[in-house]
This record gives sequence, C-alpha cells and structure tokens, in this order.
Amino acid sequence: MEARERARRSAQQGAADPALRVALLGAGVVGSQVARLLTSQRDDLAARAGAALELVGVAVRDVSVPRDGVDPALLTTDAEGLVERADLVVEVMGGIEPARSLLLRAIAAGASVVTANKALLAEDGPTLYAAADDAGVDLYFEAAVAGAIPLVRPVRESLAGDRIRRVLGVVNGTTNYVLDQMATEGLDLDQAVKQAQALGYAEADPTADVEGFDAAAKAAILASLAFHTRVPLEQVHREGITAVTADDVAWAARTGHVVKLLAIAESTDAGVSVRVHPALVPTSHPLAGVHGAFNAVFVEAEAAGELMFYGRGAGGAPTASAVLGDLVSAARHRVLGGRGPVESSYADLPLLPASAALTRYQVRLDVADRPGVLAQVAHALAEHEVSIEAVRQAPTASGGAASRAVAPASGTDPLALAHLVITTHEATDAALAATVAALAELDSVTRVVSVLRVEGA
Amino acid sequence: MEARERARRSAQQGAADPALRVALLGAGVVGSQVARLLTSQRDDLAARAGAALELVGVAVRDVSVPRDGVDPALLTTDAEGLVERADLVVEVMGGIEPARSLLLRAIAAGASVVTANKALLAEDGPTLYAAADDAGVDLYFEAAVAGAIPLVRPVRESLAGDRIRRVLGVVNGTTNYVLDQMATEGLDLDQAVKQAQALGYAEADPTADVEGFDAAAKAAILASLAFHTRVPLEQVHREGITAVTADDVAWAARTGHVVKLLAIAESTDAGVSVRVHPALVPTSHPLAGVHGAFNAVFVEAEAAGELMFYGRGAGGAPTASAVLGDLVSAARHRVLGGRGPVESSYADLPLLPASAALTRYQVRLDVADRPGVLAQVAHALAEHEVSIEAVRQAPTASGGAASRAVAPASGTDPLALAHLVITTHEATDAALAATVAALAELDSVTRVVSVLRVEGA
Repeated sequence: MEARERARRSAQQGAADPALRVALLGAGVVGSQVARLLTSQRDDLAARAGAALELVGVAVRDVSVPRDGVDPALLTTDAEGLVERADLVVEVMGGIEPARSLLLRAIAAGASVVTANKALLAEDGPTLYAAADDAGVDLYFEAAVAGAIPLVRPVRESLAGDRIRRVLGVVNGTTNYVLDQMATEGLDLDQAVKQAQALGYAEADPTADVEGFDAAAKAAILASLAFHTRVPLEQVHREGITAVTADDVAWAARTGHVVKLLAIAESTDAGVSVRVHPALVPTSHPLAGVHGAFNAVFVEAEAAGELMFYGRGAGGAPTASAVLGDLVSAARHRVLGGRGPVESSYADLPLLPASAALTRYQVRLDVADRPGVLAQVAHALAEHEVSIEAVRQAPTASGGAASRAVAPASGTDPLALAHLVITTHEATDAALAATVAALAELDSVTRVVSVLRVEGA
Repeated sequence: MEARERARRSAQQGAADPALRVALLGAGVVGSQVARLLTSQRDDLAARAGAALELVGVAVRDVSVPRDGVDPALLTTDAEGLVERADLVVEVMGGIEPARSLLLRAIAAGASVVTANKALLAEDGPTLYAAADDAGVDLYFEAAVAGAIPLVRPVRESLAGDRIRRVLGVVNGTTNYVLDQMATEGLDLDQAVKQAQALGYAEADPTADVEGFDAAAKAAILASLAFHTRVPLEQVHREGITAVTADDVAWAARTGHVVKLLAIAESTDAGVSVRVHPALVPTSHPLAGVHGAFNAVFVEAEAAGELMFYGRGAGGAPTASAVLGDLVSAARHRVLGGRGPVESSYADLPLLPASAALTRYQVRLDVADRPGVLAQVAHALAEHEVSIEAVRQAPTASGGAASRAVAPASGTDPLALAHLVITTHEATDAALAATVAALAELDSVTRVVSVLRVEGA
C-alpha cells in the first residue's frame, strides 16, 4: 500500500507544481504545429497533464529564419544547452545525428523525451530504450510509427494481455496514393508518381517511399512493439512498388483484389518474419478501403481477434497531435507519479438536446404526380430555411414510373403518385422535424414514407 | 527530480515484489476467458506487468456450477471477503448491484479495479471515478466501451493533446448484423432479428439492442471520454432501429448509402450533443465497411483529423483481451510507480528470412495457346508441392481471346498466346520462388508476366 501513498502524495504535490519546461528540437512542418498547439490548447493541456507545459526554447539551425507560430525569442541554435534545462524534450528534427546525441543528453540530464523520428528508432531504438530505462525517464514515440494513428499505446498496453499473431500495415501514404491513382485512373507508375509529386504527396526524389525504405523502418518498429523483440532494420525484407505495372493493378481488380504496399510482421512458432512488399489484398478486407494518403494497421491477436487502426499517417498537424499526446503522458507521469490517467471529468460542458444537433435529412415522400408539386415541396423547405442538396424522383413503391412532379408534362391523372427522395443540407434537427411536419400537411403529399438522418458526409 | 527518484526506487522494489493478488468477480462468458488467459499467458503477463498475476479467487453465485478453465477451489460466494484480500479486482459480473458496491469496497480497501460493466459506468461512472481518485488507485474500463477495440487509451491518452470534435460509432454488433442482413438479403427487420436470434447474435428479448439502449450507454461513456465531461445516460437521445424498413435500406443503397445505428457525440461551441439513432452513411465512408458483428468508432479531431478504430465489440475472448490489457496496466502502475510502459524488448525471438514466410502467390503467365499447357504448368507447381487455388484464363495483353491452353480445341496456331492467372494456396516464399523459376523454364511458357503475393485472405 506504500506505492499508493507515494502516488497520492505525489499527486498532491503535483497540484502545486510549477510549470514543466518543454524544449522543442526542430521547427519544421511538425515542430511548428507542436509549438502552435502548445499555445492554442494551453489550458486543456495543463488540465490533462496536471501542470502547465511551458515552451522554453526551440532549437533550429538558423534563428534568422522566421517560423510560423513560434515566438522568435524562443529560437536558439544551442540545442545542447536547451535540453539541459528542460523537463520534457520533443525531438522532431529527424535524421540520425544530432537527434540521437541530443536525446541521449536529454535522457542523461533527467528529462523525459518524445520523438517522432522513425529512422532513428529503426536504426538505434534499443540504445534509446536502454538509456531511458537506466535513467528512469519516459521515452515516447507514438508519432514515429503511423503519424496521428494511436498505435503504440494500443499495441503495448491495451493488448498487453493478449498475443499478437500478425500485423499488416498500409503505412506509407505516398505509395498508397500512387497505387490508388493507378487503380482509379489507369495511370502507369511513372505517371502516378509524377502526379503525386505535382500535388506535394511525393518528394522530388521519391526513392524512400517507392522503394519501401520508409515502410521498412515502420515495419521494424511495429514488429518490435508487437512481439517485444529487437528487429534490426537490415533484417527487414524490402521490396518497393517500382515493379508494379498498370496491368498488375488492372488484373488485381479483375480478380477481386487491390494492390497495396504492405508492412508485414508475423509471429510463428519458428520465429518472427518482418517484410515489406506489394501484395494483392481482397477487396473485402478492411485494408482495401484505405485510400489516398490514409494509413491503417490491421492487427490479428489471439484473443482480441481482428483489429484495425486507421488515420492520417503523416502531415504536420496529425503528427503534432500524436507528439502532444505523448507529451501529456510524460508530463502526467512526472506530476502524478504512479497514477493512471487523471480523472476525466474536469470539464462541465452543457449537454444539448437532440433537437439542437446539426444534421442532414433524407426524406422520402409519396406525392401526387402532377406539375407543380416539387415547387410546393421546395417552398415548404425554404420557409423553414432548410436547403435542398438533391432531389430524386422515382417510381412509387407500387412500381409505377412517375415524372410529372419534377418535370411538368401534359395530361394529369389525379390518382397517380410519384416518389420523391429529398436530401437536405445541414440544419438543426428541430428545423428539420418542423419541415417534415409541414410537408406532411401539404395537399400534394400523400405520405411521408421515411425520414432518416445522414451522417458522415 | 524527486518524482523520478521515487519512480526509480519503486521500480527497483518492483523487481523483488511478490505476486499481485487478482480477484475475479463473475465467471460468465468473459470471466472464464479471463481466468483461462491468466493461466495460459502467465509468463508473458508477468513479464509485461513486472510481477506475477495470481488469481486468488473467483466470486460466483453458486460454487457448485463448474466453470470452464477455472479451478473449482478458487470459486467462492464471499465476494466481499474476496475483494478485501486482492491487489487487483476484475469485475465482469455486469448489472448495477452488487457490482457497484463491490467495486467501491475494493477501491476503499486500496485495490486497483478493472471493469467491463458499461451499464454501471453509464449509470454511475462519476461515483466510481471519484472514489478511485480519492483512494489514489486505478480504475480501468477499456472493455466497457467497445469490447476488444482499444479506445479508452487512444482517446484519453493519445489524443490528450488534441481536441476531439465528433465521435461516430457503430457500437452494437446485433443491430449492425441485422441491418447488414436487411441490406444484403433483402430481409425485413423482423426476419433479420429472428435470424440473428437463431444464430445467437441477438437475445431472446432483443430490446436492449434494437431499441438502442446498449448503444446509448456506450455513447454516454464515449462522450464523457472524448469531451472530459459528465454525460448522464438519461440525457442521451435514443432511437432504435425498429422503425427502419426494408424499403429504407433498399433506398439507402440506391442513393449511395448504408443504414447504420450510430452512437454520436459532438462538441460545438454551444455544448455537447450525444445521441443514438439510425442514419444513412455514404458507402465511401470508412464506417460503411463495418459489417456483421464488428464494431468501429470513427473520431474527428482538430489536429489528428479522421481516425477509426475497428474490431470485435463483444464476445468472451475479445472482451477478456481488453480486460487483461487493463489488468497489466494497473499491475504495472503498482509495481513500477510512475514509470511508463516497461522496456519492450524482453523477448529475443529469432528473425526469419523472407523466404521462410508462408504466403500465397498470384502468378500471371503468357503461355502458348495449345492443348496440354495447363497440365504442364500444373505439373510444375505440383512438383514443388505448391497447390493451386484457382486458374483463370484470359485474352493476352495484346487482346486476342485464347482458350485452348485450358480447354483443348481443334487446330493449333503455334504463335497464339494465352494468359494464365494462377492463384496458389499457402506455401513458403522460397517454394513459390522456386516454382516460378521452374515455370519460366517451361517451353510452353513464353513469359512470366507478374508475380505478386496475396495477403489478408
């Protein structure tokens, strides 16, 4: 019971703790987003971490270059000095050196560290893990594996009581975009790569992506997480997508597959297999629906069964989100000692009634099949300030084709019905409900057949 | 730096700690799986938790009923006594009482607790959170929201530096199965529910599922997690699927949608909206691909963008996986104090070369279009003990239709080509590579056009 008493005392101290000093190494696409979020979400972060997070410096190569959202007074070229005066160090500079030396220096100085550096972790992760372990500090790297997608915590913690058998990942957005374009536009590889470059999805030199180097680094980290074993990068079998032809992609579709570049980590009785190569994935598989720059990691575990984690694998803001999640965890451990997540109900937000929710409706009506009905219906919606996204007319449930409600035609059968399918733009649920009630009152509306909300569009 | 020193000392003590005593409340579908995994994964769990996890008792109503995988000597009806002598208490009995009283008693006695009880958390979560907070113990409930799907950690921790705007969840497997069957088989609601009951996917009284009560409880928990605010269950707007007709489902398909029962939690400037209702979801949305008994939760966050978590939302083993992940986390906090996850490389597994991986191939060949070629090709595969799953013949890339390689025909044009698409069963990558080399040597094979691995099938 002593540990609990310690935790409690630590938590009480925490409340009175001064701010934690955060050092940021690098101010590129990710770093500037981290700096921005540290400012814009200051209060939420403090509430969640149990102490304010104060950015005390940003190490850059050239302080004369202005950085979006970063106070110029915080810029410094003295990264070594900076890490020595921080409680928490965030490394988003990339590359092996000086990132490794700076992280080791920070750890030795007693700071907890957060890194998004997959190349470094794949190259020399065990050195960093061991250093953090010896120093008794946290080393977090959620952003290094799949950008914004929470993967390290789920695999290391949520699945800690399970046994992972296999991990299949679409972990490189550039190649996924290229293969997608080949499939949907019929482009060949060169054309698709050029298009990706033009849109900024691929580097001028696309080697790291198309040859699978980026995916291999992620595969090494994923495998070591999933199987708690060390996976040197040079032992990851790697094939890129350069041999994939438009013909391959077309044939994949004809046989019910899509081509994906997969990072695969498998555990069998004989050992662990880690590889990256293009593969045919059945269109019914959840990974087949991962399009464009999105990433996803599919996990097969003994007890949990099949799991998938989906989201943005790259980009400044998504990666910064993962970095900040780690930063809050590391801060929380400093402040609260052995405690789990802090009590989650610190906010006291008003709860809105369902009628206040903004939503879209799809309303199906049976209407009289005569000219002018659509105008009447449209007028009823406009009166309630609900705008129409689409109207579709169709045969009624009883099967007769009808057209006159939308397109006036000569001759009128007063008993004929048309079926109108109206999709609205967003409005409050209350406004939509009132609109539907008004539609039901119209002479020309025989029946409101169905009202369903539309979500996720 | 004092906190770190404390953590280090605590970690050192941890190494010498005796086993942690685990009490299990309930031995139903989930409880018996928890007991089974505590035994079968004993060593892995000890390595990950930092101490052995010893099951000291299982509280049941009737000790004379044998429980699969549970030592009868561990069964007891004295749940109160059991929780008083445990370090970690797992509650999988369900219902409000006596679960609530037992958890509060366990917390008061200084135990960390893990529960899978969504009804209790939705009903009275804040009381439990506050009690755990006061006592300085952990309260984990990953299994209560979406079964095996890691969601609590990602939302509470990985996204702790971000702002969640909206959560859309397919969180009830029964209704998802029912709506799926309506869509694919054209059944009406009653027929689909009866089918679900016959297969054991729905209860004899399906009210809790089809009326949305189960989803509403999960929505309340999800909203409180996502927005750090209290959401009383009675303020969740709830509509079930009983009004959804076969016609609605058919029309959804015609307009590019599927019908899903969604749990929705949204944060706007005005406040938080939490609701459960059927909705049309565009077929292109990741939630549209969540079929049958699978669950998924789609999260929109300010910086991270769109994320989705997918997996089994119910069932004994999947739920037990989530419970054990929580149990390991709680144990780790007891043993290691303020430390993050233990160093992940405790295993030292052999790394296999890619050639040892079991995989399937799709091989495309240009072959001479004459009788007997398929027999030759099939023979080459059989010699390498690679069995064929499917062969498909098609016009060659140059466009000519060919058929004779598969179905002998009269007359032979020695220059005509056929295109064979062969999908193999699983074999080692090495055997498949050798087979492809042998195929390339055949007189009748003009060209090996493409070799791609098939994964995820």
